[in-house]
Amino acid sequence: MSGRGPSQAGIRVDAARNHHRLLEAALELVAAGGADALTMDDLAERAHVGKGTVFRRFGSRAGLMQALLDHAEQGFRTAYQFGPAPLGPGAPPRDRLLAFGLARLASLNVTGELARAADVDPRTRYQHPSRSLARRHLAGLLRLTGTVPDPELAAYQLMAFLDAGLLLHLRGEEGMGLPRLEKGWEELVGAFARPS
Amino acid sequence: MSGRGPSQAGIRVDAARNHHRLLEAALELVAAGGADALTMDDLAERAHVGKGTVFRRFGSRAGLMQALLDHAEQGFRTAYQFGPAPLGPGAPPRDRLLAFGLARLASLNVTGELARAADVDPRTRYQHPSRSLARRHLAGLLRLTGTVPDPELAAYQLMAFLDAGLLLHLRGEEGMGLPRLEKGWEELVGAFARPS
Repeated sequence: MSGRGPSQAGIRVDAARNHHRLLEAALELVAAGGADALTMDDLAERAHVGKGTVFRRFGSRAGLMQALLDHAEQGFRTAYQFGPAPLGPGAPPRDRLLAFGLARLASLNVTGELARAADVDPRTRYQHPSRSLARRHLAGLLRLTGTVPDPELAAYQLMAFLDAGLLLHLRGEEGMGLPRLEKGWEELVGAFARPS
Repeated sequence: MSGRGPSQAGIRVDAARNHHRLLEAALELVAAGGADALTMDDLAERAHVGKGTVFRRFGSRAGLMQALLDHAEQGFRTAYQFGPAPLGPGAPPRDRLLAFGLARLASLNVTGELARAADVDPRTRYQHPSRSLARRHLAGLLRLTGTVPDPELAAYQLMAFLDAGLLLHLRGEEGMGLPRLEKGWEELVGAFARPS
């Protein structure tokens, strides 16, 4: 990195800041109108940059969706790995399992929409890095409860319910409200991990 | 139907028999080599008909897959609605729930492959008629156990595990054998419906 002057470092900091601002603006648009409604034009206008900047940055709408999903997933990952309890470390495994699903459900408007928009190929949907990481996290908590015979498989069963496409279908076409879905998650976790 | 002579009826019976033979031959090919390996050429050869006949009958490979899936699903539906217990009527709800998943797992080579091949649009995957019918069947059995607070939602959770794409991933990429998946189904059902 030696030989790079402060002005270049300054440019990189500016670029990172602009990138972050673009992503945050895009997340606000998705939260307000859903992933389908997000256009490159709207984003450029919202973030006060030219449309060319948006395209140079993300390549395409699909690239933007993937970048947004990565950004949102990274925030969630940080929260369950290092954030405050009960989602983060420090709480009993059962409480952390509950908190994981409730946080997932609470962010359904943003990450759910994005995950569905990005989830095009059913053959690779179980192999996305953030999904395997989340599944290993759940398997670890299930193992800690000491009451689950096959934590790896049970983690798949829990994750299957938290699938963005399924949750959006339950909320949309089936008209199930958030409280009912939260209760359903609590029942499912409780079925595996009884209160100690 | 009056005015149709016996020869026309005979032609219709022949056509139905040929159609059935084509579907059965296709199912054998899928069971042997997977849905991806099934070609219109192989099917024509196996069923001793011309390739033109296969195309006239199904329109396209996608049409064939859909017809095969309908055929296989109809057989499964008949089995759980009217067939012998415990899959069919007459056994306690918990036994019927167990039998449902075990039958699903046993037919994974055929219906699983087909469902995955036909499952192209994640937005409509929960709306296929045979899937809603199966889900209502499970919800009815869950309600009969008397121990499940939200049978409709629990039915979605059970069906999410029986998703063909998920099961094929668990068996393929994760290398989980059939006995482990069967045990996982029993654990999941047992978590909702305790033995009486």
